[in-house]
Amino acid sequence: MDPIENTRKHIRPLNGAFIAAAQKHLDNLTKPPGSLGRLEEFARRLVAITENNNPMLDKKVIFTFAGDHGVVHEGVSAYPKEVTAQMVFNFLRGGAGINVLARHAGADVIVVDIGVDYDFGEIEGLMKMKVIRGTNNFVTGPAMTREDALKCLEVGIELANGYARKGYKIFGTGDMGIGNTTPSSAIASILTGRPVAEVTGRGTGISDDSLKRKIKIIEDGIRLNKPNAADAVDVLSKVGGAEIGGIAGLILGAASNRIPIVIDGLISTAGACIAHGIEPRTTDYMFAAHNSVEIGQKAMLEKMGLKPILDLDLRLGEGTGAALALLLIEAGLKIYREMATFGEAGVSDKIVN
Amino acid sequence: MDPIENTRKHIRPLNGAFIAAAQKHLDNLTKPPGSLGRLEEFARRLVAITENNNPMLDKKVIFTFAGDHGVVHEGVSAYPKEVTAQMVFNFLRGGAGINVLARHAGADVIVVDIGVDYDFGEIEGLMKMKVIRGTNNFVTGPAMTREDALKCLEVGIELANGYARKGYKIFGTGDMGIGNTTPSSAIASILTGRPVAEVTGRGTGISDDSLKRKIKIIEDGIRLNKPNAADAVDVLSKVGGAEIGGIAGLILGAASNRIPIVIDGLISTAGACIAHGIEPRTTDYMFAAHNSVEIGQKAMLEKMGLKPILDLDLRLGEGTGAALALLLIEAGLKIYREMATFGEAGVSDKIVN
Repeated sequence: MDPIENTRKHIRPLNGAFIAAAQKHLDNLTKPPGSLGRLEEFARRLVAITENNNPMLDKKVIFTFAGDHGVVHEGVSAYPKEVTAQMVFNFLRGGAGINVLARHAGADVIVVDIGVDYDFGEIEGLMKMKVIRGTNNFVTGPAMTREDALKCLEVGIELANGYARKGYKIFGTGDMGIGNTTPSSAIASILTGRPVAEVTGRGTGISDDSLKRKIKIIEDGIRLNKPNAADAVDVLSKVGGAEIGGIAGLILGAASNRIPIVIDGLISTAGACIAHGIEPRTTDYMFAAHNSVEIGQKAMLEKMGLKPILDLDLRLGEGTGAALALLLIEAGLKIYREMATFGEAGVSDKIVN
Repeated sequence: MDPIENTRKHIRPLNGAFIAAAQKHLDNLTKPPGSLGRLEEFARRLVAITENNNPMLDKKVIFTFAGDHGVVHEGVSAYPKEVTAQMVFNFLRGGAGINVLARHAGADVIVVDIGVDYDFGEIEGLMKMKVIRGTNNFVTGPAMTREDALKCLEVGIELANGYARKGYKIFGTGDMGIGNTTPSSAIASILTGRPVAEVTGRGTGISDDSLKRKIKIIEDGIRLNKPNAADAVDVLSKVGGAEIGGIAGLILGAASNRIPIVIDGLISTAGACIAHGIEPRTTDYMFAAHNSVEIGQKAMLEKMGLKPILDLDLRLGEGTGAALALLLIEAGLKIYREMATFGEAGVSDKIVN
């Protein structure tokens, strides 16, 4: 069977009985009911996702998918394309933002070359799963073939299955790709139905003129390629990117393995929207890490009904927001697992009025 | 010299040169300038507060001040007064929310009896610094004498000085006291000038009728005691509480020792507002942990010009929000200390448009 269809059919909706049982336990802990707000929500959802009344998050991993983008020839980024590969080396040496924050959160970082336009040769620590050497410039034709888009999804699924087997309990998504806010905003516009100008931001920090050009280029690319909004794989292939496809596949694979997955910023949320287009139940398994400075992300989160955990004016990507959100999701689980009950602590749970 | 005045005169404004030097280093790290948003702000502020270009947060502590409130006789809380002392025992055994979250953040918890109406006798781990056995009911007269209010401030200052000497690098504030959203909302109304109904919430979870009664009781207490909004010590003594005074003193002491201090929710923010009333420069040393469900907190944060770090629908107190915010403040510092520069990583920092 087709691996994507096979994955999709294993994605089940959450079982409300686990949510209710988790809330019952939370209400018996030494605090006013509901007073730990979203931490309690995180715990409930972890219980329901894993269908385990006492889940653990002892093995955590963030996948940073790297890919290049033909559309950078249009001048949509503040940085040269070479930075994608340079940052891959930085990730492997542990010096990038995601390395620092993943260490802080106790998570491993897996760096995946799924579409970088650079030959890394033999290099320790890199997951070599290259599908393409960068996308084509979507202003002149589809970013990639449908076949390559499917291969990118399969790379993500394969990683999810592999790290589920290795005993990892939660995944985070991340991206690296100079120019990749452009395909992400294109996906945001197509899948939310909003005008390009409403979902396009400054990425790494472009000028007003460049932002205008970026919007026009996205509009041109959509007009030329005519992606079918009802077919997420078509959208991914025509205006997407390899790393966005890898992220979408990772999400499908996480959901089919009942593993919670933390979605980073704009690019990861574009991947999440592709996964949601393929199988809407995937949102049950997602945690939206943060509210990105990039405006297109908010539109996609709203479309999927996800509420971000953090709002710290982040716009770096790489999985940095996911690493930070992991700390809070784990905080929720520790509350659930470690707090004393009223009975254990000899504290009155009597409500007096 | 009067210990409060002595502390106050040691509180200096931040030196902008440290902010600028920290930002220069942050801009040389392998990320687009400003792309880590508030994490960069946290790092800059830590550098300026400590006047140290390479600060550490290796020793962290949250102080949970406990006190009782005479106003609970008016039926303003969902829990009986005995819960204050019961929760102190829970803190000392490590079973409360603050214990779980402080462990998660790598912070110690110091539990301070500053005003509980219970005789704990000899008990390991408790800081016995009782000033009063609960406040008086402020509907019938001042909550405490001015002398006792000053003593509560001095307890906080003494703790700050002591833990500064022990090498702690950052403090968090916390509270425990059945009924203490009532004095905190009173303080919020007096010091922000807003009507009581606009700054009063449901605390541990009271009914509509109880909320109406709570508002009326606060209005009555303010009318009877006529606190002078220009004299924060007068406000503290007439409608405050011992734990609120301890928190205010801790903040004054932290600022005089150039130690950053993370302010928890409504009750801690009331303490922060008292400290701000005594010395406005204290706000330079504060980090507002989160946006509480309790509406009075927001009004006080706005008055002090502080923007909360988290927004997770928390309303437990104890220092739980401060513990979570510590994780993010430390994340900012780790970015500052651990990320590679463009030069070190061989990454192009050329802006191309």
